Amino acid sequence: MFKKLITLAIFLTTGMATFAQQALWGGQNIVSPEIKENNTVTFRLNAPQALKVELAGDFIPTKKMETPMGVMDMPGSVELTKNDKGVWEYTTPEPLSPELYSYTFTVDGAKVTDPGNVYMIRDVASVTSIFIIGGGHADLYKVNNVPHGTVARRWYESPGLKLTRRITIYTPPGYETGKENYPVLYLLHGAGGDEEAWIALGRTSQILDNLIAQGKAKPMIVVMTNGNAGQEAAPGEASEGFIRPSFMGATRMDGDFEVSFTDVTNFVESNYRTIKQKSGRAICGLSMGGFHSLHISKQYPDMFDYVGLFSAAIIPNENAKSSVYEDLEGKLKVQFDKKPKLYWIAIGKTDFLYKANQDFIKLLDEKGHKYLYYETDGGHIWRNWRIYLSEFAPMLFK
Amino acid sequence: MFKKLITLAIFLTTGMATFAQQALWGGQNIVSPEIKENNTVTFRLNAPQALKVELAGDFIPTKKMETPMGVMDMPGSVELTKNDKGVWEYTTPEPLSPELYSYTFTVDGAKVTDPGNVYMIRDVASVTSIFIIGGGHADLYKVNNVPHGTVARRWYESPGLKLTRRITIYTPPGYETGKENYPVLYLLHGAGGDEEAWIALGRTSQILDNLIAQGKAKPMIVVMTNGNAGQEAAPGEASEGFIRPSFMGATRMDGDFEVSFTDVTNFVESNYRTIKQKSGRAICGLSMGGFHSLHISKQYPDMFDYVGLFSAAIIPNENAKSSVYEDLEGKLKVQFDKKPKLYWIAIGKTDFLYKANQDFIKLLDEKGHKYLYYETDGGHIWRNWRIYLSEFAPMLFK
Repeated sequence: MFKKLITLAIFLTTGMATFAQQALWGGQNIVSPEIKENNTVTFRLNAPQALKVELAGDFIPTKKMETPMGVMDMPGSVELTKNDKGVWEYTTPEPLSPELYSYTFTVDGAKVTDPGNVYMIRDVASVTSIFIIGGGHADLYKVNNVPHGTVARRWYESPGLKLTRRITIYTPPGYETGKENYPVLYLLHGAGGDEEAWIALGRTSQILDNLIAQGKAKPMIVVMTNGNAGQEAAPGEASEGFIRPSFMGATRMDGDFEVSFTDVTNFVESNYRTIKQKSGRAICGLSMGGFHSLHISKQYPDMFDYVGLFSAAIIPNENAKSSVYEDLEGKLKVQFDKKPKLYWIAIGKTDFLYKANQDFIKLLDEKGHKYLYYETDGGHIWRNWRIYLSEFAPMLFK
Repeated sequence: MFKKLITLAIFLTTGMATFAQQALWGGQNIVSPEIKENNTVTFRLNAPQALKVELAGDFIPTKKMETPMGVMDMPGSVELTKNDKGVWEYTTPEPLSPELYSYTFTVDGAKVTDPGNVYMIRDVASVTSIFIIGGGHADLYKVNNVPHGTVARRWYESPGLKLTRRITIYTPPGYETGKENYPVLYLLHGAGGDEEAWIALGRTSQILDNLIAQGKAKPMIVVMTNGNAGQEAAPGEASEGFIRPSFMGATRMDGDFEVSFTDVTNFVESNYRTIKQKSGRAICGLSMGGFHSLHISKQYPDMFDYVGLFSAAIIPNENAKSSVYEDLEGKLKVQFDKKPKLYWIAIGKTDFLYKANQDFIKLLDEKGHKYLYYETDGGHIWRNWRIYLSEFAPMLFK
């Protein structure tokens, strides 16, 4: 009936259509990164005319650099070597330990992602290529063959901020088909982040799927808000269009986000089957999100039985107009007198907020407020925040 | 009480923390692409040591190239010029017309995305930078200030494929708070695609939000399946890890996806408030998804009142073992005797499947089967598929 369109069939089955029209520009047909069986990794870039190609990544020894904050450890870089086919290569001298790693190439001065690797994450305005070395805690970041929760991007009304706002919500496996009520973890991002930060950089759905499957965490709903009080949604997802993400963007640490947080809890509790009591609610966040968690949880002392401060930006904000930041000690006393089940403070030893967190802990000690403290190596980085979530979630709702 | 951590506050509010630790490598602080008021566009890349920087994009005149399919129009490229600060620049000589455009740079032979632009889309294994010139049909691709639907990534059981599979589902604004039942559009991707293709490359949620807000399309649920019968989920979203996406990947055009499509409809109709009758169901797809739509709709002739073939890969597959592909004419007769409300065929004039679609139309004409035909310029490209969705959705469920 049809002419046998053999040419087309071959065309379709050999990937040539990609070359031709569908994907206008094909990826490079070299493998990068190549993770060897012994967990050494080879990076490759096809750049025959380039004079110099460098690799920067969080698996390369850091170098000391002068910054406004003093001398700091900055990401190191290495040079790749060009082979006779014009492909630049670098292999790590040692196997890498389990982790989710980020890297970029610099080609004759242009800092770019790896065109051989489609897996990337955006942190503020920086996009980096990523890969995972499995094993240990890094297995929590992988999609494993376990039941998977649902991730929804929704919009809700915030009368307090006078905005319709985007929110990312994880519901655990079985939520849709079951009838029970679930506890809720409110998971807040840092400055420069948005409602995409935890789900992408934080691997939240993978961590929760895996912890729940292992019986280590209770099935819970995880609510990832946008903590920038002036922003509808993540850059590119709002009516302002494809704006360039910026570090403080529409962030206003003026108390509005904290006070209006009941817009979020009201939305969640009227749209999902939740446990509507203090023992069914947790709040935590990283950096600015830790600051938000501190202030929201004491602003609403009957709301959260579990509070987590991850590398929290504990900075005085008493000059802000909002009353949220007034009388910190008095409000903490009210909160702690109500005996929250867990107040958890986590920070890395080289975090620039280390001292601020130690000062806060000293205050809690002086006042006899009970908390748990978790200290790690490293600084103000996502590597730590994924670990903190992996440690915090199993302690909740038990 | 606290020492005033002024340094930290400044640090946090000037974006230096990004430089220091949070975002390990900052983006370039140059603007690219810069869309001028008259819709000319300037592209910039900081690459002081580079010898040559080129820009390829679907807004640059094509060039003729020899391919296995004969001489074809391939994307053109232009050279950027280096200014005295080491920044390479190119400005389009003419304003660009409304469209979502894709582009890449080539830096001394390395094809890369624009490091100044965080907005990218993946097509099979190719990642390109994108931007939108608004106006006309391209305004449908923007996030506008209109009510937004919800986009959920869920997992469902497919007994027919013996897999737990990932699926992307758009529910229209008001779905969660309402009580009514909604019609469903099943929207299928092409070879090399997956359940992320339509939502990312196809701008489905933006198109539907906008068409619904304008009163041009009925509120509907849109279900974006993974049409690769051997695949759990999109690359990077399945337990196989961060594999390199490939054109045919786990695609098997062996009839299994078509026959097991009731796993999808059963899941959707038992988990969502749907109109469970022929007049409440539509199916369409691009390329391989058009092939799937053709075969599924005639395999289940009582199921879909609306069928759309977008640049459909209408290729004979009579040697496949499945009975799905047998007796095309007889099955089409059964389907058309039941008078579907719309059978819509769209193709571009330079699509390599143009002839195959004309042959199919000739067959429909010979048999007296009623269809609508929509012909556009251009070939086998997402630009056309976004337009086809924008044209098809308003004709549904009326």
